Amino acid sequence: MVNENNNNAAAKDDSQMSFEPERPDVYGQAQPKELLRLIPEDHDVLKSLANKHIISARQFDKETMLQLFRLAAKYESNPDRFSESNPLQGKILISAFYEPSTRTRLSFESAWHRLGGDIMSITDRASTGIAKGESLEDIGEMFNNYGDCVVLRDIGESSVFDMMHSLCIPIINAGNGTDEHPTQALADIYTILKWRPEIMSGTGTPIKIGLIGVPSRMRALRSLLILLTEYSESIDEVIIIHDGKSEKIFSEDQQEQLEQGGLKLRVVTDLNKEIPSLDIVYINSIAWVKDSFEVMGQDMKLTADSPLKPNSIILHPLARGDELSPALDNTNHNWYFSQARGAVFIRMALLTCMTQRTGRVVDIL
Amino acid sequence: MVNENNNNAAAKDDSQMSFEPERPDVYGQAQPKELLRLIPEDHDVLKSLANKHIISARQFDKETMLQLFRLAAKYESNPDRFSESNPLQGKILISAFYEPSTRTRLSFESAWHRLGGDIMSITDRASTGIAKGESLEDIGEMFNNYGDCVVLRDIGESSVFDMMHSLCIPIINAGNGTDEHPTQALADIYTILKWRPEIMSGTGTPIKIGLIGVPSRMRALRSLLILLTEYSESIDEVIIIHDGKSEKIFSEDQQEQLEQGGLKLRVVTDLNKEIPSLDIVYINSIAWVKDSFEVMGQDMKLTADSPLKPNSIILHPLARGDELSPALDNTNHNWYFSQARGAVFIRMALLTCMTQRTGRVVDIL
Amino acid sequence: MVNENNNNAAAKDDSQMSFEPERPDVYGQAQPKELLRLIPEDHDVLKSLANKHIISARQFDKETMLQLFRLAAKYESNPDRFSESNPLQGKILISAFYEPSTRTRLSFESAWHRLGGDIMSITDRASTGIAKGESLEDIGEMFNNYGDCVVLRDIGESSVFDMMHSLCIPIINAGNGTDEHPTQALADIYTILKWRPEIMSGTGTPIKIGLIGVPSRMRALRSLLILLTEYSESIDEVIIIHDGKSEKIFSEDQQEQLEQGGLKLRVVTDLNKEIPSLDIVYINSIAWVKDSFEVMGQDMKLTADSPLKPNSIILHPLARGDELSPALDNTNHNWYFSQARGAVFIRMALLTCMTQRTGRVVDIL
Repeated sequence: MVNENNNNAAAKDDSQMSFEPERPDVYGQAQPKELLRLIPEDHDVLKSLANKHIISARQFDKETMLQLFRLAAKYESNPDRFSESNPLQGKILISAFYEPSTRTRLSFESAWHRLGGDIMSITDRASTGIAKGESLEDIGEMFNNYGDCVVLRDIGESSVFDMMHSLCIPIINAGNGTDEHPTQALADIYTILKWRPEIMSGTGTPIKIGLIGVPSRMRALRSLLILLTEYSESIDEVIIIHDGKSEKIFSEDQQEQLEQGGLKLRVVTDLNKEIPSLDIVYINSIAWVKDSFEVMGQDMKLTADSPLKPNSIILHPLARGDELSPALDNTNHNWYFSQARGAVFIRMALLTCMTQRTGRVVDIL
Repeated sequence: MVNENNNNAAAKDDSQMSFEPERPDVYGQAQPKELLRLIPEDHDVLKSLANKHIISARQFDKETMLQLFRLAAKYESNPDRFSESNPLQGKILISAFYEPSTRTRLSFESAWHRLGGDIMSITDRASTGIAKGESLEDIGEMFNNYGDCVVLRDIGESSVFDMMHSLCIPIINAGNGTDEHPTQALADIYTILKWRPEIMSGTGTPIKIGLIGVPSRMRALRSLLILLTEYSESIDEVIIIHDGKSEKIFSEDQQEQLEQGGLKLRVVTDLNKEIPSLDIVYINSIAWVKDSFEVMGQDMKLTADSPLKPNSIILHPLARGDELSPALDNTNHNWYFSQARGAVFIRMALLTCMTQRTGRVVDIL
Repeated sequence: MVNENNNNAAAKDDSQMSFEPERPDVYGQAQPKELLRLIPEDHDVLKSLANKHIISARQFDKETMLQLFRLAAKYESNPDRFSESNPLQGKILISAFYEPSTRTRLSFESAWHRLGGDIMSITDRASTGIAKGESLEDIGEMFNNYGDCVVLRDIGESSVFDMMHSLCIPIINAGNGTDEHPTQALADIYTILKWRPEIMSGTGTPIKIGLIGVPSRMRALRSLLILLTEYSESIDEVIIIHDGKSEKIFSEDQQEQLEQGGLKLRVVTDLNKEIPSLDIVYINSIAWVKDSFEVMGQDMKLTADSPLKPNSIILHPLARGDELSPALDNTNHNWYFSQARGAVFIRMALLTCMTQRTGRVVDIL
């Protein structure tokens, strides 16, 4: 801790403290504006999300997604406008992260704050009633009295289902064990459609998608695969790329259900052999094993030397480890930062629907 | 953690994600509306709570309670109206829970947010100045600069008194060791008056109250017993029911003071023998023993088979363990959920008085 | 925990729960009003802080400080006015305290809330992406998406520099290891100028300042010394008083740079010998040693018996331990409480500039 850095004085020169508040890059407003232009508004579809919990990607059909993406694109195109209009004024979010996660927690909380609502956070399982043996049903009853919406992350798959039984306010599954993470998957599809809007209409050349990971043990992958079935006509093939260490790539019935949904699946272990043909490379480093995490094998890495197709994009739910080199950050393949940014807006859209405040943000004719 | 549940796909069918936002039950608005009708408003009484700390149930006489209950009933009858009017706009609550408690913390924070105020939370003693040896008086000085009101929970009985010495903003005792928890007791009485408004006027048949627990070591019971002395003319008898494991049922002078206050006390150990005659059964599972908790004995349980009197009600400060069976939740005896719900409104009423913002919510003639 | 205190009943008498909301003392409004009167407003100087990170005390020249102090004095003179006008409405602060600190965290959060903004807090390093190996650059990218300003405290000196590389929202260094704590130093100078406004103009008798501590290992001292160079014409001497246990009083080049800045430095170990000649005694108990703290030696204490010069003032960044006796709290030497209070207003001023909302609070002609 002793300050030995002779260069600090120079480094602290005031001119070096300046930063550029806006940067020309893929995170710009052109793409959300294009989506906004292409999708006609249908308020009734958004209203159908009232009085519903959001637990699984299965709950979203193409039409509902389109309207959510439209509203997200509206927020993303003009973020300042809506942070001043406060559509969630007077509403309280209970942000319950029993499995700690700064990134997802802040993403939801930022979305709620930008809509003008208030938040109460639980960031630690140890200090809660759960630790003392309180049932999740009782916690749900408590939450009914204290808030207007719940965001729950827990290592247990069943927690969100147990809590749901007693809730009369909506709950969002922000990750339940190895099961699902539906809002991450919505953010993934939102990013893909900003990149290739023609997928919405099923026109254009079908794409090849590579998913690096193990769908049986990665909730983000599980939810994404479910949503991809809605766009199967635009997808040539989905290639599951894993490190060969997992015994079971799919959980029971998972593969059959996805194939029934229209996806062509192929499972491989040689990443670099597939990369040159992929339009989207989705990489995720972390797999659940019982109560802890396991990192993907050493060969499952993307670097500046990876033989990426020229116009292909990389997606990653973040946080990343070694598997995704920062050398790719300043390339056109980097759509993972756009994906993280878009997640805030898709959550804003979903939260507006679930609190029945869409009337304050849609265009009244 | 591996997903083996074949039924999840079916369970996730969207139609099963719907919920009923309103449920016909005892938590309805009829009871608070009745209280509101019966109690004439007296703004001067509420103004007498300005510039006062709230430490003990001893501070509340019948008239002050009535006006607090009236304001709580007003909030409960029309919650949306007041969350839009923001009477605490610009006020900051310091929510200091050195003894962790999600339930009480969220109850206070929800109350404050519903009134439009902002909150800074301390949820962990380990990371605070107290852990580094800072005095409570100094922490009080700090709080003066940073907020407009303090809610304090601590395992030490004396912490709230120590901090009070330096405070020039109001503090609320949200539980100090085995000593008191006055706002819980206010919530208890508020619930009882919603159930039997005639107790306010001392008319009607006197009731029998059974308190399962040990008043020497349970702060919620201690505070409740103090408040019950204000209604002694409506109470036939207060029966303390314990498991026989405690050497000392009352702390020094406690019994004498309650009897001087007009309560008829009786101490027993056979729960089921008393139940058939009780109008109110108040049950609390947890007793303090030194720095930790002790659970009440196995015989101190309420179940669907307990010989409850037909129109009797059950109260519980929650969280509950085994001692109160969920099988009672859907019976008319369940007033403990109403009690938890009402606690938010009584805290809203008290906080409005302590921040001197009653002028924004009472009816000006 | 068992309640044995017979006096509690008496102590709880309601009349003893009253407090005085305002107290006549040095923390009054006369001093900030005087500063406000003496400093002419220059909005352009405040605007120069837009799109800049605040990392080091080196970034502040005399003119910038004066305008910040003017704005702080404006807030301090009339705190209610600005908490109603909400200049930071719709803005989100990310309050990231990876090294826990209740006092500094609440000071920043109170400042932000008083300006009407929303906050997301991180109070624990263990539950964050950093613990999982996420890079600070990636965390900076995340923060760009989620908030409008970052306040960072970390035990690592380099963390704030690493995070800065990816940020396109402003970050404030709220303490980085042994390096700097620039907003504490601004609060110190603001206090000194409220006490002796003539220092602003370099008029009046030069003062003697004693700094009890080790500048090589105390970030608050390091930053304060840098700012004092801007006022060297008003300072007769700066005396570093330490306990003799430290091998290295200054870090490399520190002494030379301060002397080049115009300060006359002297290093001593006999506190009581110097006290009678000091106009300001700045005391700080805690020094960093590697990853933990070390308390100053037993002789480095201020008590009611210390031979303080009649009109001298004591400053302390707080929290305090044994080194500063509470017996001094009720003397005219106590400007440390004023210093803590002023820190909120100086942070309000700085945050208003960094979020480019000065237009909402300066006087438009």
